[in-house]
Amino acid sequence: MTDFTLGSVISSRIRLARDINGYAFPARLQSNKQAKEIIRSVSAAVNKLDEFRLYYMDGISEEDAQSLVENHLISPALLRRPTFSAALINEEGNISIMINEEDHLREQCIVKGLDLRGAYEKMSEKDTLIGQAIPFAYDEQLGYLTACPTNLGTGLRASVMMFLPAIAIGGMMPRVIQSATRLGLTVRGAYGEGSSATGYTYQISNEVTLGVTEDNIISQVTAVVDKIVEMEASERERLKKGSGSLAIKDKCLRALGVLTNCALMSSEEFVDLCADLKLAACLGYVDVTDINAIDELIVKMKPSNVNLSAGRKLTSEERDSYRAQYASKEISKIVTRN
Amino acid sequence: MTDFTLGSVISSRIRLARDINGYAFPARLQSNKQAKEIIRSVSAAVNKLDEFRLYYMDGISEEDAQSLVENHLISPALLRRPTFSAALINEEGNISIMINEEDHLREQCIVKGLDLRGAYEKMSEKDTLIGQAIPFAYDEQLGYLTACPTNLGTGLRASVMMFLPAIAIGGMMPRVIQSATRLGLTVRGAYGEGSSATGYTYQISNEVTLGVTEDNIISQVTAVVDKIVEMEASERERLKKGSGSLAIKDKCLRALGVLTNCALMSSEEFVDLCADLKLAACLGYVDVTDINAIDELIVKMKPSNVNLSAGRKLTSEERDSYRAQYASKEISKIVTRN
Repeated sequence: MTDFTLGSVISSRIRLARDINGYAFPARLQSNKQAKEIIRSVSAAVNKLDEFRLYYMDGISEEDAQSLVENHLISPALLRRPTFSAALINEEGNISIMINEEDHLREQCIVKGLDLRGAYEKMSEKDTLIGQAIPFAYDEQLGYLTACPTNLGTGLRASVMMFLPAIAIGGMMPRVIQSATRLGLTVRGAYGEGSSATGYTYQISNEVTLGVTEDNIISQVTAVVDKIVEMEASERERLKKGSGSLAIKDKCLRALGVLTNCALMSSEEFVDLCADLKLAACLGYVDVTDINAIDELIVKMKPSNVNLSAGRKLTSEERDSYRAQYASKEISKIVTRN
Repeated sequence: MTDFTLGSVISSRIRLARDINGYAFPARLQSNKQAKEIIRSVSAAVNKLDEFRLYYMDGISEEDAQSLVENHLISPALLRRPTFSAALINEEGNISIMINEEDHLREQCIVKGLDLRGAYEKMSEKDTLIGQAIPFAYDEQLGYLTACPTNLGTGLRASVMMFLPAIAIGGMMPRVIQSATRLGLTVRGAYGEGSSATGYTYQISNEVTLGVTEDNIISQVTAVVDKIVEMEASERERLKKGSGSLAIKDKCLRALGVLTNCALMSSEEFVDLCADLKLAACLGYVDVTDINAIDELIVKMKPSNVNLSAGRKLTSEERDSYRAQYASKEISKIVTRN
């Protein structure tokens, strides 16, 4: 039996925005002296936790910085003023704390699958320890004070990355977005605000941070995600039985064919073909040992990660060639035709 | 070592145009009484040879007739007046004699590879026997008299089907055509007069039939084909070493990927992808047990042949699905990645 819910939730992400009493918000910091002070004190607080490594944004190579962006550990915004900013990243690579991005601290924890509560607990534990060492800007009435009013209160953004090929192909995405919006949630393309969705991947997150508890937010996002998973499952069933099913199967199988037989592969095409390959797995046309491995491969095959893996800055064609060879070998290992 | 001449000659074809004394040319035959008389007498002459089967064009199904066209055993023109025309085809399927096409007899022999002389000898042997039974229209000065003056004299058309991907990709085809024309030869797309070349496949044949011996014609066409094979080989070497080689390799490998991983495949796409797959073999990117098997598969996968193989008239989508499954299985058997 095909499991029509396979892979529809990629990951859950908790983000806490925190600022420090006695400092202007990062955008208003005048000197990098103060910025470095903030970095040092956050770092000192976190280093007691003894599992984090500090990266000064003006102390790492462009390639290393871009790789952190590709790995979703920092935002591109953190690189705008590298002399002001830094990031603390744990060994496991699932918790990162950006310093002097929009807020003094942006604490983030990402876990696989649907587990916002688990991610929140992991992040909250660290947040409490940091809060004991650093005086967070906090108001009894409002809650946490943040640079942008949209983060006021809990400072919590709970997001779930979803893979929704059947809803997207069936043209149901506008309806999903409308329903989510009515419930105070936002649906975005996978690559953040303003991006159009690539690879059938969407991010569902809460809009409201004020006047609700952390628990409310997590429960509500989780409930909506559960509903969307159900809807995606029934759309997949329709997609497999419907009149256009052979055309879909054809597209899916061709993706496997090209991914495992090519000599050049751009980053963009790779994302699209991997999405079709994942759809093939979701509809039972191929077997994958681990569908997450495909998402990890997508990240691993982004330009800066490829350069780091190859050990030097490749030309664009060299990178497309490296990606074609590496990815085709890896995909052959984890995917088999049904 | 890659053999850069692999597959550049697909097949050699000899065609003799003959007409019978005492009958108007087919286009001028008024009644099908006379047409049937001609069919009977040719058939009687040939049946002494005891290996041919007679197909009346008004006695076979549309599907069977189209299949004969797809197998290059008859021309589409033979089907224009089915009550007038017939074809005698030998068991091996390499000799066919069309009756009442443009001429009373169009005798044709096709052999694999470059062997015009071999094909001519096979055909000539039958032609002599037929000529002993039937009074061919023949003039001591002019030679064989034919419906169209372009066939006067020997009535011989010696054609070679060539696979010239590197010359075509390198943009050298106009030069080849120009040189061939200067030598009195014609270069056409694979599917006869007026067709544009598909699948890098071209037909080289003599233009002049009058005032030369059969031997002259065969020697000249063979010599030109040899030259073109050499040119194709050096273009292939350039293609493999040149700046765009990775893009070519990519296209070739993707063809293999799609051919062996798809659920729908049109006849046209199949021809194009098979051409890229053959190019992959020519450049040493894949190994094929037998490159002719791919050409045979192209013929086998044409619409009417697919219907006959499936045992009923399929819809277009059913045919594309049948082709995808059948071809992908066959290609997996004969092709391996290098």
